[in-house]
Amino acid sequence: MTHRIAVIAGDGIGTEVMPEGIRTLEAAAKRFNIDLDFTTFEFGNCDYYLEHGKMLPDDWFKQLKGFDALFYGAVGWPDKVPDHISLWGSLLQFRRQFDQYINLRPCKLMPGIKSPLAGRQVGDIDFYVVRENTEGEYSSIGGKMFEGTEREIVIQETVMSRTGVDRVLKYAFDLAQTRPRKKLTSATKSNGISITMPYWDERVVEMAKQYPDVAMDKFHIDILTANFVLHPDWFDVVVGSNLFGDILSDLGPACTGTIGIAPSANINPEGQFPSLFEPVHGSAPDIAGQGIANPIGQIWSGAMMLEHLGYKEAADAVVTAIEEVLSEGDSSVLTRDVGGQGTTASLGKAIAERI
Amino acid sequence: MTHRIAVIAGDGIGTEVMPEGIRTLEAAAKRFNIDLDFTTFEFGNCDYYLEHGKMLPDDWFKQLKGFDALFYGAVGWPDKVPDHISLWGSLLQFRRQFDQYINLRPCKLMPGIKSPLAGRQVGDIDFYVVRENTEGEYSSIGGKMFEGTEREIVIQETVMSRTGVDRVLKYAFDLAQTRPRKKLTSATKSNGISITMPYWDERVVEMAKQYPDVAMDKFHIDILTANFVLHPDWFDVVVGSNLFGDILSDLGPACTGTIGIAPSANINPEGQFPSLFEPVHGSAPDIAGQGIANPIGQIWSGAMMLEHLGYKEAADAVVTAIEEVLSEGDSSVLTRDVGGQGTTASLGKAIAERI
Ligand SMILES: CC(C)[C@H](C(=O)O)[C@@H](O)C(=O)O
Ligand SMILES: CC(C)[C@H](C(=O)O)[C@@H](O)C(=O)O
Repeated sequence: MTHRIAVIAGDGIGTEVMPEGIRTLEAAAKRFNIDLDFTTFEFGNCDYYLEHGKMLPDDWFKQLKGFDALFYGAVGWPDKVPDHISLWGSLLQFRRQFDQYINLRPCKLMPGIKSPLAGRQVGDIDFYVVRENTEGEYSSIGGKMFEGTEREIVIQETVMSRTGVDRVLKYAFDLAQTRPRKKLTSATKSNGISITMPYWDERVVEMAKQYPDVAMDKFHIDILTANFVLHPDWFDVVVGSNLFGDILSDLGPACTGTIGIAPSANINPEGQFPSLFEPVHGSAPDIAGQGIANPIGQIWSGAMMLEHLGYKEAADAVVTAIEEVLSEGDSSVLTRDVGGQGTTASLGKAIAERI
Repeated sequence: MTHRIAVIAGDGIGTEVMPEGIRTLEAAAKRFNIDLDFTTFEFGNCDYYLEHGKMLPDDWFKQLKGFDALFYGAVGWPDKVPDHISLWGSLLQFRRQFDQYINLRPCKLMPGIKSPLAGRQVGDIDFYVVRENTEGEYSSIGGKMFEGTEREIVIQETVMSRTGVDRVLKYAFDLAQTRPRKKLTSATKSNGISITMPYWDERVVEMAKQYPDVAMDKFHIDILTANFVLHPDWFDVVVGSNLFGDILSDLGPACTGTIGIAPSANINPEGQFPSLFEPVHGSAPDIAGQGIANPIGQIWSGAMMLEHLGYKEAADAVVTAIEEVLSEGDSSVLTRDVGGQGTTASLGKAIAERI
């Protein structure tokens, strides 16, 4: 059975880490006898926008929807195209049109990586952020009034649906149930955001009734970010709205040392549409073109893709290879951000060879 | 000249830390010859709500508006009254009706307090969060549709006005100008929240033109929270919307060791209405009634109040007293959260005596 993978590298370091992601996937495919077929697309980046006035061709949905997964780099180059145009024109379209309503991000302190948090060791930080990925604060409803005058106002709506909230909660509770600690934390702000957030809380209470074996707590987002820093060991599965999940899934990886290596999966759990796998980091225009970007976020995202396609053993082998290379700490191999003097390619090769 | 201070202690540990806040203010008033006149109000707490069906009497505005400042503890007791009712019925009313459009929160690593961030020393973390405090994500506009059915949706609007955005930016730029580093960071999320946040960015660019001597940068809120943990030394003055400021002003103090000691000021800069001074921490039902809450947040908020009333020297003396008591580290004086075995009163007294 051939798995067809669409590759969209995007901008900046996206184009540099992508080859390393593919290198490792090919190594894993060989070792575990998986048939992966990669097709590269040249759209979904800011140069494409400058040429065509849009981020994607009109028939992108048709072109991509038959693939088994999208392997995605990083998009955005604010000096060429404003972020809200490049992102709403690409990544956020995929998430929405392919109904990838789960954004899943592991936050795990890896061997050889120093946490910025004092005294935290491997094993102390190991949780998932489950983020709602299609609605909530990321709406495109709203507008401007009294434009250009002193009375100018802008309005943007947050929209939550029962369908949208319940399905992400269900996914998060299900995930918590598979974990040894069986613990779920809900991110809210119902003391300040007085309509949508109390609704979120209500649905959590309702959903929790079906999971009596899962221990549940909730925190307002302000104190929750504080607790990520003060007590990262409290968390097992953390579920949040689109915005809160976005924040927590950058802060969580930062607490594990660097967002440069964190992976993410944008999942359509029913498999009706392809899911999308991408590193948490952005396109990093500041270091683009130097060949020094850390490819681990891309490679680890590839592991999540393998797991999603049903190859748990292969996925574990990739993560183990990452862990081994990191814990060896060979500075001629590691990139600068993790204390080495190597390149994107040296680190990518070392991981691929290990498989 | 007599300064009339309205005292509202609120719920839980609010009622325990308030007497210590007043004790220190009275000591400072005596030493610096300031005439403070405290009037205590019994409303604005959850027991009042249970008795009267509302958090405040109908004429609260008339009762309070003539005061020179409000000295405020902490409100909320979710087992008695849902947070969105108790908070929208009290604190958020004050902020809005008294047009306290600035929420100012120092994030400063104090002597004797261990930062959860590895290797951070006194002097490494010292910045202000300036939060918009009256509009933005904390709107009460919105509602529910298809209630009780599978199609249920809730909507809540974020509203930003040019007036509201510009005045908080102006305050933040002015503050940055008074600081040695003259640096301002704007919190945004214009890559995902596509209407209000690009507007925020636009106004920042516009305002920055009037402050050529202030160095300006901006980060999306997700990576900004990561940078609070990875590079807290980057920040000097950080300005954000109501929600983003809320998050950053819990996360910032957490990076300085504990939100238990952080102060805040809700300021109406024009002085048309009283400003409100309160600790960042909440009412903490879990430790209420034991006399072990740390009163420093309340006392430090009192110092901010003194400064606001024009007594900079007295304010500095209070902060110095806090620093001295913390750096001495007498465990019979300090409360548990900062490594001692003392009580709210022992710590409050030690600080007051120092003045
Ligand atoms: C209690 C709550 C409504 C409040 C807020 O979100 O503004 C608090 O977190 C704060 O920061 O003062
Ligand atoms: C680039 C941006 C629109 C995006 C988001 O906010 O979803 C990113 O931060 C992410 O987390 O994938």
